[in-house]
Amino acid sequence: MNTSTGARPFSAGAVVDAVDAELAAATSAELGEIETRLRETLRDPGNEFLGRAATHLIDAGGKRLRPMMVLLGARFGGPRTENVLDAAVLAELVHVATLYHDDVMDEAEVRHGAVTANTRWSNTVAVLLGDYLLAKAAQLGAGLGDAALRLQIRTLSRLVRGQMAETTGPQPGADRIGHCLRVMSDKSASLISMSARIGAVVAGADDHVADALEVYGELIGVAFQICDDILDIEADERDLGKAPGTDLREGIVTLPVLYAIEHDPRVADLVAGPIADETRRAEVIGVLRASPGLERARREADRHAQRAKDVLHDLPPIPARDALFALCDFVTRRTT
Amino acid sequence: MNTSTGARPFSAGAVVDAVDAELAAATSAELGEIETRLRETLRDPGNEFLGRAATHLIDAGGKRLRPMMVLLGARFGGPRTENVLDAAVLAELVHVATLYHDDVMDEAEVRHGAVTANTRWSNTVAVLLGDYLLAKAAQLGAGLGDAALRLQIRTLSRLVRGQMAETTGPQPGADRIGHCLRVMSDKSASLISMSARIGAVVAGADDHVADALEVYGELIGVAFQICDDILDIEADERDLGKAPGTDLREGIVTLPVLYAIEHDPRVADLVAGPIADETRRAEVIGVLRASPGLERARREADRHAQRAKDVLHDLPPIPARDALFALCDFVTRRTT
Repeated sequence: MNTSTGARPFSAGAVVDAVDAELAAATSAELGEIETRLRETLRDPGNEFLGRAATHLIDAGGKRLRPMMVLLGARFGGPRTENVLDAAVLAELVHVATLYHDDVMDEAEVRHGAVTANTRWSNTVAVLLGDYLLAKAAQLGAGLGDAALRLQIRTLSRLVRGQMAETTGPQPGADRIGHCLRVMSDKSASLISMSARIGAVVAGADDHVADALEVYGELIGVAFQICDDILDIEADERDLGKAPGTDLREGIVTLPVLYAIEHDPRVADLVAGPIADETRRAEVIGVLRASPGLERARREADRHAQRAKDVLHDLPPIPARDALFALCDFVTRRTT
Repeated sequence: MNTSTGARPFSAGAVVDAVDAELAAATSAELGEIETRLRETLRDPGNEFLGRAATHLIDAGGKRLRPMMVLLGARFGGPRTENVLDAAVLAELVHVATLYHDDVMDEAEVRHGAVTANTRWSNTVAVLLGDYLLAKAAQLGAGLGDAALRLQIRTLSRLVRGQMAETTGPQPGADRIGHCLRVMSDKSASLISMSARIGAVVAGADDHVADALEVYGELIGVAFQICDDILDIEADERDLGKAPGTDLREGIVTLPVLYAIEHDPRVADLVAGPIADETRRAEVIGVLRASPGLERARREADRHAQRAKDVLHDLPPIPARDALFALCDFVTRRTT
């Protein structure tokens, strides 16, 4: 197992602890099981390096938000089956696959406090590790039945479409905030939404429950991404596990920045194009931190989280529902 | 449609022409249909750029060897169905997806006589285009039934494993020729083998026919790759549609080079590591062209092609079988 200095273990269990002791104990045991399975799934007897390198970003830590969503979604169905754990592993594999590819695209050097695969090895290795995780996720998906598989495949398309829309940016003259929200929805919320739904689907929950969980996941996913974008401006490197201002370095204009521009159009010139220089980036971060754009973005995240809570009212009042409520607060109040 | 100067249209139909007029006419019409479907499948109403960029390497041409394999494999089953055409499109999508990712890894600038996606746009766009094609292929695969889907997923794993084994190279002291043959099998032959088998599977052919076609595909796939590696040393840029010596530039030691080393160990020093300098590369190509390693590699390709022909004897004597025979000669005698 990787022991890179600075790597932080997964920590999503904490949010469930507050809700229901029995659920917390059960979910925490399942999350531990998923840690084991993630590594087992990626082992490759034919290529020792491949199996070892593939767990690099998994060993580096992460919140395991998506497996958690799968496990909670599955509580609305029948007794837990192997398929539920497979779906949870699948969701994290797809997530980590996009991280490997993202880090190549962003030329990122650090992720979760650990050096990225593209930096440690090469772009080639990082692209292949992403492909490998997607192939493993497809193997798992093929065993989960038609509905789950279709959901997984639709999500892959949305992930690519979202990333591509972010890369190309909005059409000239288009509504930039609408474009930004659509990118967040496809690039980030789609997989969280899939996770909540796929848990319900493989556990045999009612259709209306699966539908509600899908909408919940979509809303909480956008809230999560807005908070991520806020943290990229507001947090310091120690908390973030990477340097802040990643989006500015990439020339990606996120929601808080668009709001800052609405408040003061001169900000647009500051963030036109990638900002490679670290000092310039620190200056722009200073301007953005002082702008009311951040607060407005936070309100938008809260609004999404509130709508996510509203959707939960349609679900049976089981402990998992309380945990999903608590997750809304966790997502919007987190500092890392 | 792309009209890049130098782009060459697909040309596999030629080999079938020689065999059976009726089959040639039918297959040629189907290949035309597949050209249309490839573009329809990749259209994306939500992102005009994505749909257009995704066909970049498809418009650049290619032999369409894999769709051809699917179509011929399917002749051993029942009457043609929509699924057969979908499987043919799927096979080409997976192939082109690997090309997008390969060109990022190889930092290649030209492919099929057209500029690569990573050069025309960026690494980010090229990685995403590969992911997009894989997602579309997964959508098609999900509609083809369990056996076809499992085959597709197993092939994706093999493709990644083969590329990774090529990247990491053999273990110190390992049998380099054995490693090279395994890489060819996973990286190249797996998809050709999948194509032949998936055609038979979706057309409902008997299991023993599907098995034979899979073995045929595996053998012809290795023959194809050996010839590719020979051409990378032997052909000139005009015929190849890209500069020769790609493997030397990447530091990849292919079968003809390993044979050249067996004949004269001093060659090992010439090809140790990537050769960035064009003049140096031309010198090494000169040495390799003069080596008996090329001829030995050609005999190895012929041996694989002959074994592929032998496997065909177990199949019913229909025109498609004759076409598969002819394909063996096409593969080993091609000059581009």
